Amino acid sequence: MKAQRRSILKRLFASVAGVAGLGTATQVMAEPQAEKEVFNVVNHQDVPLFSGSTKLGNLVFVAGKGYHKEGDIKVHTDEVLKELEKELVKAGSSMEKVLKVNVYLHDLNDYKGMNEVYKGRFGSKPPVRTTVAVYGGVPGDSLVEMDCIAYI
Amino acid sequence: MKAQRRSILKRLFASVAGVAGLGTATQVMAEPQAEKEVFNVVNHQDVPLFSGSTKLGNLVFVAGKGYHKEGDIKVHTDEVLKELEKELVKAGSSMEKVLKVNVYLHDLNDYKGMNEVYKGRFGSKPPVRTTVAVYGGVPGDSLVEMDCIAYI
Amino acid sequence: MKAQRRSILKRLFASVAGVAGLGTATQVMAEPQAEKEVFNVVNHQDVPLFSGSTKLGNLVFVAGKGYHKEGDIKVHTDEVLKELEKELVKAGSSMEKVLKVNVYLHDLNDYKGMNEVYKGRFGSKPPVRTTVAVYGGVPGDSLVEMDCIAYI
Repeated sequence: MKAQRRSILKRLFASVAGVAGLGTATQVMAEPQAEKEVFNVVNHQDVPLFSGSTKLGNLVFVAGKGYHKEGDIKVHTDEVLKELEKELVKAGSSMEKVLKVNVYLHDLNDYKGMNEVYKGRFGSKPPVRTTVAVYGGVPGDSLVEMDCIAYI
Repeated sequence: MKAQRRSILKRLFASVAGVAGLGTATQVMAEPQAEKEVFNVVNHQDVPLFSGSTKLGNLVFVAGKGYHKEGDIKVHTDEVLKELEKELVKAGSSMEKVLKVNVYLHDLNDYKGMNEVYKGRFGSKPPVRTTVAVYGGVPGDSLVEMDCIAYI
Repeated sequence: MKAQRRSILKRLFASVAGVAGLGTATQVMAEPQAEKEVFNVVNHQDVPLFSGSTKLGNLVFVAGKGYHKEGDIKVHTDEVLKELEKELVKAGSSMEKVLKVNVYLHDLNDYKGMNEVYKGRFGSKPPVRTTVAVYGGVPGDSLVEMDCIAYI
């Protein structure tokens, strides 16, 4: 029992040394074993191109999502938000745990319509947001593209 | 006294187990209690739309800021930087603790004027920066929009 | 010996208290000693303008990179990816450890050509990606600008 406790203590010391650097200014986030996970990898000609989401520790990064079918800005916003949510849930996160969203509109005139559908979708503590329009610069004829950073 | 110490030890073990995973490859950042904080929430029709900043652990995300009054690129850059600083201070951070800035210019010809005002504003260890122009794509007639990621 | 062990325990308690907040919901990432490092600082008129990369804990942020010489989208994409890699390696990271990439094309018609060169460059577990075109909005006549967030 005593030996076991000592052994746990040793592992405890080792862990804490790794985490807190025992009095040095070592970063907490510098845990060397941390490795990313990826979900929904998209290939291009059988070679990995990008992932739908990546995860490191409790941080989740979601790829830019568009909607490539018919519909106005409200339809496109709704579908893009649903795509973000799918990725978030798959990675173990949720709309309520999003920290930052980037919105790329096809046309700045869609700003108001986008807001109509966007509002409230991330709960009562919404993420920060940066919105710009890129006039023809969203791939695949989507009226809006969004990505996000979240946590678990 | 002894009992108290033992109790503290127990809590210590529990904490460290949560933090360091006691010898497993558990992420340091995966502390399950970590919850975001949000500041300066902006509503749209009484529904939360986005926050001025969000905070998770020691990371701070600031929303895209524009300046919606008269002025040239130097005035707009100065005002936008002040807006970023307000959000950073409110969240417990500072200009010196910014890691990454995104700059969206209305016109690429303003690149030089923006730099004149931007330089030195983040101290001697400045953040990384990504600058593009979006030609009419910045909301609210601002000549420049900026967001940032910082720490505390 | 006993005194030394007690001293280590005290430091251990102090460290863990700082890290885990001893039973409170304190963020793991909130280690107050965490300070950013910066690499390849670019000055403007002898004043720090931005860094090539910044590092906090195990997170690395790389500045937007363009290519400012002759060449088509494949050449530009290749050179920009090499620039990202240089910064990553300098900061102690690698292409395989990238979590998120932002791609700003000069022209959306270059999307396919960019993909041809981009695919596989980040290994079998690629980062998420957000791509938009900004039509003249990339500084210095580069056909593409990219930045990234990675880890160590």
